[in-house]
Amino acid sequence: MADFTPTARTTLKRLPRRGSFERELIYSILDEGLVCHVGFVHNNHPVVIPTAYGRTGEHLYIHGSKASRMMSALRDGADVSVTVTLLDGLVLARSAFHHSMNYRSVVIFGKVSEVLDRAEKTEALRCFTEHIVKGRWADVRPPTKAELDGTTVLSLTLEEASAKVRTGPPLDDEEDYQLPIWAGVLQLRTVAGELSPDPRLPDGIESPTYLREYRRAL
Amino acid sequence: MADFTPTARTTLKRLPRRGSFERELIYSILDEGLVCHVGFVHNNHPVVIPTAYGRTGEHLYIHGSKASRMMSALRDGADVSVTVTLLDGLVLARSAFHHSMNYRSVVIFGKVSEVLDRAEKTEALRCFTEHIVKGRWADVRPPTKAELDGTTVLSLTLEEASAKVRTGPPLDDEEDYQLPIWAGVLQLRTVAGELSPDPRLPDGIESPTYLREYRRAL
Repeated sequence: MADFTPTARTTLKRLPRRGSFERELIYSILDEGLVCHVGFVHNNHPVVIPTAYGRTGEHLYIHGSKASRMMSALRDGADVSVTVTLLDGLVLARSAFHHSMNYRSVVIFGKVSEVLDRAEKTEALRCFTEHIVKGRWADVRPPTKAELDGTTVLSLTLEEASAKVRTGPPLDDEEDYQLPIWAGVLQLRTVAGELSPDPRLPDGIESPTYLREYRRAL
Repeated sequence: MADFTPTARTTLKRLPRRGSFERELIYSILDEGLVCHVGFVHNNHPVVIPTAYGRTGEHLYIHGSKASRMMSALRDGADVSVTVTLLDGLVLARSAFHHSMNYRSVVIFGKVSEVLDRAEKTEALRCFTEHIVKGRWADVRPPTKAELDGTTVLSLTLEEASAKVRTGPPLDDEEDYQLPIWAGVLQLRTVAGELSPDPRLPDGIESPTYLREYRRAL
C-alpha cells in the first residue's frame, strides 16, 4: 500500500530528515506502542487524554465508557490528533544545549467516527485485546451485548499521519568534540517484569506462555 | 504546600476514586516521566506533540527551537493541556471487556508564558538536563547566549492539575471469577539498557556513575 501523503500539518518545518510518511514505519510504531494520547478541543480548550488503542489495517480504534468525559466530548465527527511515542534512549551530548532523546513517534490527524455495528465493535475489542497481548483473545470470555452497548468505540481512518524518528549519537558543535566529557546514548527499553496472579485466581491455573514470554518490541 | 483545587475539567466524571489532586503524587509522576504530550489548538484543530520537559517547584518548562511549529503555535498566553503518562502494567482480566492497564498519569491545563530572561532560561535548561539525568548539568558545557537566544522556553504554572492512577488486579464480574482463565497483572518497567559511547569519544573518558547506575523509577 502507498505511503502517506504529506500535508501542511504533517510536514516538519524543522529537521525534515527526521520526518517520514512511510506506511510500514508508521504502522510498526503504532503496533509497538501501548498508550496513545488523544487531543481534542472541548469548550474551546485543548484536552489531552492517554488511552489504549488498537489498529486493524487503516483503522485505529479507541474506546471508552459512554459515561466518560472523553467519549462524551468525542461525538461522531470530532476532530482529533492522536500521538504515539516510543522512547528509545537518552542522548547525552557534551553541551547542555544538544542533549536530546532518541524516540519514534507518530502523529495522526482526522475525525473520529462512531462504530455502531455490534460485529465491528466486537472486532474492535478483539483488536484492543490482541494489541496489548497477542494470543489473549482466544482465552477470554468474549463481550456480551450489554458490554458492547455500554462501550463507545471510535474509529479513526489513517489518512493523515506522519512519523518522526531520532536515532544515533549526539550531534555536538564541532568545537565541543574535543571536550573531556563523556557523550553517547543511554538506551531505554520497556520490559515485562513480574507476572502477578490475581489474588482470587484458583490454584492450578497456569500462566500462559504468551505472558511468561512477553516481549513488547516487535 | 496545599493540594490542587478540583475544577470542572480536572474532576473525573467516571471512577472518581482513581482521581487525585494530591500535590506530592502529581509531582512524583511529573518527576518520573521523561516525555510529556502537549496539546494545543492550531488553526482550529487539536494538535498533540511529544516533547521533553522539566519541573522546578510550581513551574513546568518546555522548550524548542524558535523555528519549530510547536513553538510558533504556542505564543505567549497559548492555552495548553499537558499530559504525562507512566505505564506500570497490563491488567489481564477473565473477560475481554475488563482488560485494562495500570498507569499513573497527570493532566495539566493552563496557559504558557514565554521565558525571556536569560538567567531564567538558563535555569530552565538546567532543569531539563537534570530532569533526564540527575548530576549531568555539572559535567556539561553550559549554554551560550546564542543558544539561549535561539531557544524558546515556555513556562506553565501548575495550578490546574490532577492525577489519575490505576493499580492492582483486574476487576472482573463476580460470575467470571470461577472461569478457568489465568488473570492478573504483567508488570511493565522502563529500564536503562546499554550505554553506547559516541563513536567520536576520545579514548580514556570513563562513563559517569550517574549513567552506569541510572534508574528511572524514583
